[in-house]
Amino acid sequence: MTARHVITGFSNPTVKRIRSLRDKKHRRREGRFLTEGLRILTEARAAGHVPETLVLSDRADPHPLIDALEQDVFARGGEVIETSVDILEKLSGKSNPQTVLGVFDDLPTSLDAIDRSAAPIWLVAQEIRDPGNLGTMLRTGDAVGAGGLILLGDCTDPFSVEAVRASMGALFTQQIARANGADFLTWLRAGPGQLVGTSLRTDTDYQAPNYMPPVFILTGNEARGLPEDYEAACDLTVRMPMMGKADSLNAAVATAVMAYEVLNQLRRT
Amino acid sequence: MTARHVITGFSNPTVKRIRSLRDKKHRRREGRFLTEGLRILTEARAAGHVPETLVLSDRADPHPLIDALEQDVFARGGEVIETSVDILEKLSGKSNPQTVLGVFDDLPTSLDAIDRSAAPIWLVAQEIRDPGNLGTMLRTGDAVGAGGLILLGDCTDPFSVEAVRASMGALFTQQIARANGADFLTWLRAGPGQLVGTSLRTDTDYQAPNYMPPVFILTGNEARGLPEDYEAACDLTVRMPMMGKADSLNAAVATAVMAYEVLNQLRRT
Repeated sequence: MTARHVITGFSNPTVKRIRSLRDKKHRRREGRFLTEGLRILTEARAAGHVPETLVLSDRADPHPLIDALEQDVFARGGEVIETSVDILEKLSGKSNPQTVLGVFDDLPTSLDAIDRSAAPIWLVAQEIRDPGNLGTMLRTGDAVGAGGLILLGDCTDPFSVEAVRASMGALFTQQIARANGADFLTWLRAGPGQLVGTSLRTDTDYQAPNYMPPVFILTGNEARGLPEDYEAACDLTVRMPMMGKADSLNAAVATAVMAYEVLNQLRRT
Repeated sequence: MTARHVITGFSNPTVKRIRSLRDKKHRRREGRFLTEGLRILTEARAAGHVPETLVLSDRADPHPLIDALEQDVFARGGEVIETSVDILEKLSGKSNPQTVLGVFDDLPTSLDAIDRSAAPIWLVAQEIRDPGNLGTMLRTGDAVGAGGLILLGDCTDPFSVEAVRASMGALFTQQIARANGADFLTWLRAGPGQLVGTSLRTDTDYQAPNYMPPVFILTGNEARGLPEDYEAACDLTVRMPMMGKADSLNAAVATAVMAYEVLNQLRRT
């Protein structure tokens, strides 16, 4: 077994490089992203994704899941770094000695890599800005058996620490694609697919239509909802009943309520 | 019309007092909380809640909703503070000159104030720790026509700036109560009410039961779910289908998927 690499200095270039992955600019330059927590790292491993660098503290208690992860990292020629709790805190913001970090190569995000026939549901997010919402959409996508999440326009980075955390590991089980709206529509219309948008400008209740897989559930920006040209491009626009004072739901909640309706229809047929 | 009170100094005691309301300890001591943003302040006003102190910048553009709010604050003997963008940034973290802040008296949170017959759905959260989740639950509660949100045990503060923001103003339209589990169950069993918990330890699909209003939808802590004794106290435990690798949903998402199922049943009858 290859040995752990012990780092004791804050100014170590590897520490600086890992720390820099908290910033989108550096993630883009390095082509790598950072994941925190044994649970998410274990989900990633179960989905076949092993970090190229694993970081843990010299005071971490032994744990069979850490052992397994470490073996896999070594087996793939990766690096395991053991460091102080102080340095780990600098990297993660957490002073917990059990904190584990992984550095991963970027995942593919090309629309061409998406095989729409692989799943009956796909989520599509337009200019979603909150990393918690984006990660929660990935987590919901996993739960409803979606194939992945297609990000249109200026969405928040799915590889931020916050988005990965909110996804609870679904980042590694859902396919992710990034595209502009026009390229997405060209791709969509080159094959089967029902594009369903949630909107306030429709009277169609979300339980009224018969959804036909593959269903692409399109959710708009948190503050502005879907632009009219996106709505016009949808096969269907639908609305959830709103019984109170407000006229909208949280974007990740709206996506989930829609996605469970589609799943419920599909599992009845 | 009473005049605005102009504050120019960072060390002004009112500035310090308002700033301190970002901390739970100070909110508790003052019996007040802080709300940011014209949209939420307007929702509050529509629900009959006017801030005792309104803070805006000396560079804010005129806006009819700000005018209306200002009139109401003066009419109720409150104070309107005009200050610099720099001081407003200190108070809100935002350097936008359109930022508006309101200081409100605490809202009631006694279980005894809840009239369960007022709504067919009530949300109940056990040790929810994330302010975004708690606020999102309030927002969803408003949307499904719930009466309010009952917080059990050590939940995050519903009056934090983050929770109020995520509620999008539903904090002011939903009733809020805080209780320990035992007191809640005593209260619940003194009248009609079906307590429905989401759980991983059941085979009952969430679409199988007939929900009988008032339905109390119980959601557990983000990391641990519902404790077994809470599950045992439920009239029903149900689960959402999970088609992927993960075994759970985000707590606010799970609450919303459940709440829309109950609403959908109720609107069919």
